[in-house]
Amino acid sequence: MNDTFLKACRGEKTDYTPVWLMRQAGRYLPEYQKVRAKVDFLTLCKTPELAAEVTIQPIDILKADAAILFSDILIPVEAMGMNLEFSESKGPILYEPVRDEIGVLRLREIEPEDDVPFVIETIKILLKHLKVPLIGFSGAPFTLATYMTEGGSSKNYVNTKKMMYRNPELYSRLMEKITKVVIKYLQAQVDAGVHAVQVFDSWAGILSPVDFERFALPYVQRIVSAFKDRLPVIYFAFNSSAMLNSVMKSGAGILGLDWRIEMSDAVSIIGNNASVQGNLDPCILFGTKDLIRERVARILKGAEGAKGHIFNLGHGILPETPPENAVAMVEAVHELSSKNSR
Amino acid sequence: MNDTFLKACRGEKTDYTPVWLMRQAGRYLPEYQKVRAKVDFLTLCKTPELAAEVTIQPIDILKADAAILFSDILIPVEAMGMNLEFSESKGPILYEPVRDEIGVLRLREIEPEDDVPFVIETIKILLKHLKVPLIGFSGAPFTLATYMTEGGSSKNYVNTKKMMYRNPELYSRLMEKITKVVIKYLQAQVDAGVHAVQVFDSWAGILSPVDFERFALPYVQRIVSAFKDRLPVIYFAFNSSAMLNSVMKSGAGILGLDWRIEMSDAVSIIGNNASVQGNLDPCILFGTKDLIRERVARILKGAEGAKGHIFNLGHGILPETPPENAVAMVEAVHELSSKNSR
Repeated sequence: MNDTFLKACRGEKTDYTPVWLMRQAGRYLPEYQKVRAKVDFLTLCKTPELAAEVTIQPIDILKADAAILFSDILIPVEAMGMNLEFSESKGPILYEPVRDEIGVLRLREIEPEDDVPFVIETIKILLKHLKVPLIGFSGAPFTLATYMTEGGSSKNYVNTKKMMYRNPELYSRLMEKITKVVIKYLQAQVDAGVHAVQVFDSWAGILSPVDFERFALPYVQRIVSAFKDRLPVIYFAFNSSAMLNSVMKSGAGILGLDWRIEMSDAVSIIGNNASVQGNLDPCILFGTKDLIRERVARILKGAEGAKGHIFNLGHGILPETPPENAVAMVEAVHELSSKNSR
Repeated sequence: MNDTFLKACRGEKTDYTPVWLMRQAGRYLPEYQKVRAKVDFLTLCKTPELAAEVTIQPIDILKADAAILFSDILIPVEAMGMNLEFSESKGPILYEPVRDEIGVLRLREIEPEDDVPFVIETIKILLKHLKVPLIGFSGAPFTLATYMTEGGSSKNYVNTKKMMYRNPELYSRLMEKITKVVIKYLQAQVDAGVHAVQVFDSWAGILSPVDFERFALPYVQRIVSAFKDRLPVIYFAFNSSAMLNSVMKSGAGILGLDWRIEMSDAVSIIGNNASVQGNLDPCILFGTKDLIRERVARILKGAEGAKGHIFNLGHGILPETPPENAVAMVEAVHELSSKNSR
């Protein structure tokens, strides 16, 4: 197996900088579209053969150095008893958002073998075929809580913050329940054989540093410490680049970075405390091949002093992205980092 | 006139920390709703007596230390020849977005006396009645360009970035035109008598630091240097807290901060280079009065070493905010900063 990604996670020397893309199995690929045309999004997540097929596609097409399980962060939320639907225009919809005691009380804990067997099955299929490491994942508790309280995506997250600020006791009970579920959910993925896990805190960036440390971080810390001795844990707190000192307290061995910070600045803050993952603006893939190469080089250079570096976008690849530009990006990372390797 | 705000802008000692709120004239106030019920939003912006009335409301109700002209950042964009409409659900809509050479060519420069006389008239009315300084404002060129290329708000700003990355020459011609208009527009406000100006770069935060410095900053620098010798210039680059070193290069005497950075961290980066404005999460105003007071105290303490500090929210006040909590915030700022004053 190509273990470059895992070496970089652990901060070991690699021959080149490994690279994968968030949402690399996704709508920008015609090959994905073809599979997706047959089934709706949730059915795709829940059909192991198909989920495995789209997980593998970008490994062949892009030559990515790691695969990430094709799934959705709301899968365990649905398993907790909420009704989930994906609307083409509005994105995810969770019916009857959790805003009071009864809402929290009726959430179920999950038994992964019974509630999300398809996730375990998908991992088992993938491990038979993949020649690169497989990353399992979960949403972070705070991010899952925002979806559950808002009933989907939101602009200002007023319902989540109202609960945090007005009823911190209820909020913490909700977060306790979610945290237990996330740990069980990741444990099932780890037991099934994933080589690393990523915790997506997509909405951490709506919090001030003090709120992040009070209302999100403690739960992430518990998740990280449950797994970090067994395998690499990547923590991606989107839009949190102005509070990296707080994000570092997660204890994760690898920190995902969005594109809002210069890589060299991030590395000088993080130092030897963690490897870094990131951080190209996904929109650069709408530019010319020369621009892509220039920006890849800049990030590689900025990460030279890092403990370890996994190249990635600073957010998920966008559906409108020309696939050949994603290929060009991966090629540029491999080529330029091989030249630079010392 | 209460000149506490202007003193803090200039970094002079004040008896207490001055405070105003972005969007303080707005939907959270029943008094505003009453005026707004009579006319649509654009008509309100363009009717000097009404615009002046809502501008003054929060000075009386909140006891804010500065007023900000009631208007919209897209007013000069409409004057450049684009058709503007405000939809209750979608926000601003600009028809026929600017995406090619013809789009850029047909944009007009503006003559404020002819094209936006109501802005000048509103300022003149306000100066007769206000006992606090009046802040004029404009959108920053990059932010205006995003609205013009996207045709409104956007999720990923793909059209703006496509133009930047694929056709930088056309992009720079668009930005040149906008920059000239912004300077003329602010010049008219300054000539009419505003005491300070704020440049809102609401979408600067979608740019990486290198793109910000290449595609947004140079235009802001020109605007700042056109006015900074005459009056205080506040530059508010929303969601840019991870690149404050780049934001500082604007040259603005006062930097607006969102809530994503700890105030003490921002002050240690900015040092004596600029006064700071901010940075309470607007959602804190959904919390208890005790929480509001605690967070106000934290920000005041964090700003103790700043050149000057103007208290504000880290973004516009939200429509659902209880007005009495905004009042409580202003009271807390005044009271706690008087106690702390050295």
